Amino acid sequence: MHLPNHFRFAGLHCGIKPSTKSDLALVVSDLPAAGAGVFTQNRVRAAPVRLTEQRLPASDIRGLVVCSGNANACTGEPGWRDAVRMAEIAADKLGCRPDQILVCSTGVIGQRLPMEKIEAGIDLAAKNLASDRQSFAAAASAILTTDTRAKISSRIISFAGSEIRLTGFAKGAAMIGPNMATMLAFVLADSAVPCQHLQNLARQAAQETFNCVRVEGHTSTNDSLILLANGAGPPLPNEGLKEFDAAVTAICADLAREIAADAEGASHLVTIRVTGLPSKEEARRVAIAVADSPLVKTAIFGADPNWGRIVSAAGYAGVDFEEKNLSLRLGDFELYKTGTPARFSQEDASAYLKNNREIDLHLSFDLGTETATVWTCDLTYEYVRLNAEYTT
Amino acid sequence: MHLPNHFRFAGLHCGIKPSTKSDLALVVSDLPAAGAGVFTQNRVRAAPVRLTEQRLPASDIRGLVVCSGNANACTGEPGWRDAVRMAEIAADKLGCRPDQILVCSTGVIGQRLPMEKIEAGIDLAAKNLASDRQSFAAAASAILTTDTRAKISSRIISFAGSEIRLTGFAKGAAMIGPNMATMLAFVLADSAVPCQHLQNLARQAAQETFNCVRVEGHTSTNDSLILLANGAGPPLPNEGLKEFDAAVTAICADLAREIAADAEGASHLVTIRVTGLPSKEEARRVAIAVADSPLVKTAIFGADPNWGRIVSAAGYAGVDFEEKNLSLRLGDFELYKTGTPARFSQEDASAYLKNNREIDLHLSFDLGTETATVWTCDLTYEYVRLNAEYTT
Repeated sequence: MHLPNHFRFAGLHCGIKPSTKSDLALVVSDLPAAGAGVFTQNRVRAAPVRLTEQRLPASDIRGLVVCSGNANACTGEPGWRDAVRMAEIAADKLGCRPDQILVCSTGVIGQRLPMEKIEAGIDLAAKNLASDRQSFAAAASAILTTDTRAKISSRIISFAGSEIRLTGFAKGAAMIGPNMATMLAFVLADSAVPCQHLQNLARQAAQETFNCVRVEGHTSTNDSLILLANGAGPPLPNEGLKEFDAAVTAICADLAREIAADAEGASHLVTIRVTGLPSKEEARRVAIAVADSPLVKTAIFGADPNWGRIVSAAGYAGVDFEEKNLSLRLGDFELYKTGTPARFSQEDASAYLKNNREIDLHLSFDLGTETATVWTCDLTYEYVRLNAEYTT
Repeated sequence: MHLPNHFRFAGLHCGIKPSTKSDLALVVSDLPAAGAGVFTQNRVRAAPVRLTEQRLPASDIRGLVVCSGNANACTGEPGWRDAVRMAEIAADKLGCRPDQILVCSTGVIGQRLPMEKIEAGIDLAAKNLASDRQSFAAAASAILTTDTRAKISSRIISFAGSEIRLTGFAKGAAMIGPNMATMLAFVLADSAVPCQHLQNLARQAAQETFNCVRVEGHTSTNDSLILLANGAGPPLPNEGLKEFDAAVTAICADLAREIAADAEGASHLVTIRVTGLPSKEEARRVAIAVADSPLVKTAIFGADPNWGRIVSAAGYAGVDFEEKNLSLRLGDFELYKTGTPARFSQEDASAYLKNNREIDLHLSFDLGTETATVWTCDLTYEYVRLNAEYTT
């Protein structure tokens, strides 16, 4: 892991979650950082989303305070004041203006934040801030809800004799849908990048990565991707910016795949590739129809190479094609070829599903050259258990 | 039950299903009947769907042969010939032209029909045809797949001194999505109705009833609604036609609700009513977003009055509104009022979900006067079990 310079981290349990799991993260840049973000497209937007969105893009962000276990969504005017207050408390501890602090929350909808606990938590976190890996890991853990593990990705790029370090961390698990999800993702870098460039990059990287993750099509109230670049390194020339953009996008792609792989109750990470359609939009529509089909997702859980469900999901995606235009592969198995069932070993294809946690579906059409890739997971007993028994 | 005159029925096991469950139904009208139908909008359409669609509307339909356990979908040219052959065999037994016979299939995708068994089955069914209730019940059972019970609805209307009898039967269970579903539904009547009128009625009744059922959003390859009116009664004047249309629509609504209530693994029938939006289309979009959310469906299974999931599903339906425009009721419980959580007893609302198999959700907006109603069911362990272990 390549932690960027001049960032410090803390993560701890302040008492939002009923368990002893950590639930408050504080991330501080010692230098004013360029900041940018993209947020949920849901009409119902949590207070911290509205507050943080207002503050970005900006060129002098100092910190990020995240609480997990409570989304501070659908909490009306009092919830808005709580979000504002979280930033004020952190700003007070760090000696900066409140509008230099970004706020995120994730968890249960419709409950007020326990502000006394959060105030004490931010106070303690500010005292614990450190730049070592352990402190970073504590912060990356404190943003999780039903995730089973932290999601972290890191890159290092060299330019003009100096190194630029980038590290991202994220949480996912539930409500992973179109246009972002109950997903928080942060990418920190120690390069100098204009905040407007960062804002364009955030939009584009989200579109190419997080927006290609489909767990259940339920967009959340709190989705946020935030990029911070604190300028500890030298300003980047155009070529350096390109490399920087590619590194940020690669980190986002890593985190997006990790989110799909660790979705609630998932036993398979499914990569759905669609090729050969006239437009990207059509390719994406087919991929999403397949990814969202509970019949496809349960078949994968059941290790059933059920091409009929996949082909029929493609059939209702709203894309014009005839059966003969479509072929389908599952891993190396050709299941369906130009409109008719192919010969394959049901047993071997089922074994491929049983023995691999990561599996590939490829729907190829002969109607064009555009492609799309979407990541999803299977639908399991554990998904039902977690969501029938857990109040989000 | 009011069986229409001059129809005869048979249902039996011919060997398509590995179990001993019945899998072949034959319905015959002794008089040439006006026939109409509407079919799946999936790009992947089973052979029997394409064949039957070609033959409708028509004024001289004599029979209907339905097999269950095999969808005859994705079977290419040989599958087409099998569908044609099914009609030929039935026509031969009944002494009519093949194009007077309609064919439907439902079940596993991508496998050839066992035509020898089907030929013997149609032969036997033709010998068993009878107009009594038991024979009708045998036919209504023979079209089922993973349904736990037959779906039947009946009406009688009086006009100009004579009685008109209408009876519908259907199968549902899996792949219940937009624009019809793996759903076969048949409504038989002994009135005289022009086939073009019947065709318009089929389209409108499907839109108002079956197309409002959302189990999983996966449109099937085989959905069909077929109406037959055999003219045993007197021609209907305009006023009588209106009453006839209302009776057919009411039967379709009964069958649609039955399909949602008996969806695979369902433990709740959920009626989602959306009111107060500027257009029907927007109301329908909100209802469908809520109906399709696995998070909403698992919460209902878990008896969790989780209004946050419902409100946030409405939020991504692509309809413009502010939180304050929306209120939500679950049965008699007001959960959310003009943008803020309402006070209600979590315990009582949970008990309502636990103690009622049929539950109501009402999302009311203050942005217009248009409404929509959609029926769905919850997402249960049993749904996952059935679909992970059953090859459709």
